[in-house]
Amino acid sequence: MFNKLPVEVEIFEVGPRDGLQNEETLISTKDKINFIDKLSLSGLRNIEITAFVHPKWSPQLADSNELALGINRVDKINYTALIPNTKGLERAKLANLGEVAIIVSASESHSKRNLNRTIDETLEVVKETIFIAKQKNIKVRAYLSTVFGCPYEGYISPDIVSKITRILLDMGAYQVSLGDTIGVANPLQVSEILKNLFNVIDDKKQLALHFHDTRGLGLANSLVGLNMGITTFDSSLGGLGGCPYAPGATGNISTEDLVNMLHSMGIETGVNLEKLVDCNLFLQKILNRELNSKYSKTYIATNKVPV
Amino acid sequence: MFNKLPVEVEIFEVGPRDGLQNEETLISTKDKINFIDKLSLSGLRNIEITAFVHPKWSPQLADSNELALGINRVDKINYTALIPNTKGLERAKLANLGEVAIIVSASESHSKRNLNRTIDETLEVVKETIFIAKQKNIKVRAYLSTVFGCPYEGYISPDIVSKITRILLDMGAYQVSLGDTIGVANPLQVSEILKNLFNVIDDKKQLALHFHDTRGLGLANSLVGLNMGITTFDSSLGGLGGCPYAPGATGNISTEDLVNMLHSMGIETGVNLEKLVDCNLFLQKILNRELNSKYSKTYIATNKVPV
Repeated sequence: MFNKLPVEVEIFEVGPRDGLQNEETLISTKDKINFIDKLSLSGLRNIEITAFVHPKWSPQLADSNELALGINRVDKINYTALIPNTKGLERAKLANLGEVAIIVSASESHSKRNLNRTIDETLEVVKETIFIAKQKNIKVRAYLSTVFGCPYEGYISPDIVSKITRILLDMGAYQVSLGDTIGVANPLQVSEILKNLFNVIDDKKQLALHFHDTRGLGLANSLVGLNMGITTFDSSLGGLGGCPYAPGATGNISTEDLVNMLHSMGIETGVNLEKLVDCNLFLQKILNRELNSKYSKTYIATNKVPV
Repeated sequence: MFNKLPVEVEIFEVGPRDGLQNEETLISTKDKINFIDKLSLSGLRNIEITAFVHPKWSPQLADSNELALGINRVDKINYTALIPNTKGLERAKLANLGEVAIIVSASESHSKRNLNRTIDETLEVVKETIFIAKQKNIKVRAYLSTVFGCPYEGYISPDIVSKITRILLDMGAYQVSLGDTIGVANPLQVSEILKNLFNVIDDKKQLALHFHDTRGLGLANSLVGLNMGITTFDSSLGGLGGCPYAPGATGNISTEDLVNMLHSMGIETGVNLEKLVDCNLFLQKILNRELNSKYSKTYIATNKVPV
């Protein structure tokens, strides 16, 4: 069944950004900083902490500057933030970030409605942003959203996905994270889209997978990617977040569940699972609700940890 | 990544038995009958409706006779029940069931504590039960529990699993369902245990997989089995049930999530997903709690179905 599995996998924690931006309750900057500081002690090596976007776009992330300057940075952890353009880049630089993320949609309708620009217009902005980032020695990671399906168009052509991915790499993004924005990917499709992408990339490390667990398929989809040689996966502590197109649905795949799957298969991540459960308990307190990680839920129940 | 995937998969719905037996709230016989009648209209072809065990063992299933005689049976659906011995077999026969299930544990300690017998003693009882069942023209399916780990012993040897499986087939069980009783299986392990089993079986249809989603790995584990040629999977509507060893943890893999994964990969099951969501809504009402199926949760949220 399995090909040669990787010895180690890179986890990209996106909870403080992709997770929290979909949470209705406004969290205080202090709580967010404490949450990120706890994540920093878990062994995670990549944390997307916020987005430098207009507060109107995401009130939850309006405190990005204060937050980015307020966290206790741990050596060797890659702290990054989502930015929409050169203005966001400037703010990220002022907040001392060495990496940023930009976002492009693989669907024309989603691009227009979500980013208020066509795909080509977005790519123009991204080109300029990456160009300036490189001059300032800031690394750029790219998100490609709606790769596995679009809330407006449905089907997305794998060729479009491959084409935009290649453009983003050519512009200088070091990695493209393939987003299942609405959680409709299935294992067979993951395999087909990756196969198609392997024709246009130079190295599998140029790709990451970003699954939402909207229909419970996040880990099964991740497993397919893993078995095809992908070694970077995005996830959120506690499966944080939701889906703006399906209110009430669950968010990103849970970091705890992903790390547990990898560790149980003998694959290292550098992450301490018990410390992730600590982060989960903290997050439950500040959000005042149960989270979606089955690993944490079971760990807490089995070990009778007081919540 | 994928081998030749099957055209069709057999779903074995175990919600009314394995699911409900772990639910704390006692459900009325009428509600259970209505639930099973709804399941019967969804296209499911195998439903384990109850267990003919001593009421002390499972108060939730104490109404097995009334229930088995009270449901509206649909042609061609295989209705079955768990039985511990020949006495249970007799009761199942009086309730007009054409199939029963017996259970053996792959762990000596689990067997002693859970079934109050050693593995060998259980196999003796099973041998007699299958022998008599055959005479009465009743099919017997076997559950092998703690295949992927035991709450007392931890590691279970794949050779023991293969050995007991072969014994059960030789005794006349038509299929052995491999149970991840405490939800600790991981994808790599599933692949290794199946590889080992393939040396002792005659046909992959002699095996079924029975995963609990305790740590969120149920569908990823199922995917491994599917890709290795297994075509029967046990699941519970709404991910019903729990784990007696981890109170608060989730139960079986959810039938809706499993069927959605299969359908989205182009694999048929004969099941109508929308009708499963109807069963989910009905079950939420009688249990008065939210269920664990992410597919149903998202379907209900997206389509604004009143709960």
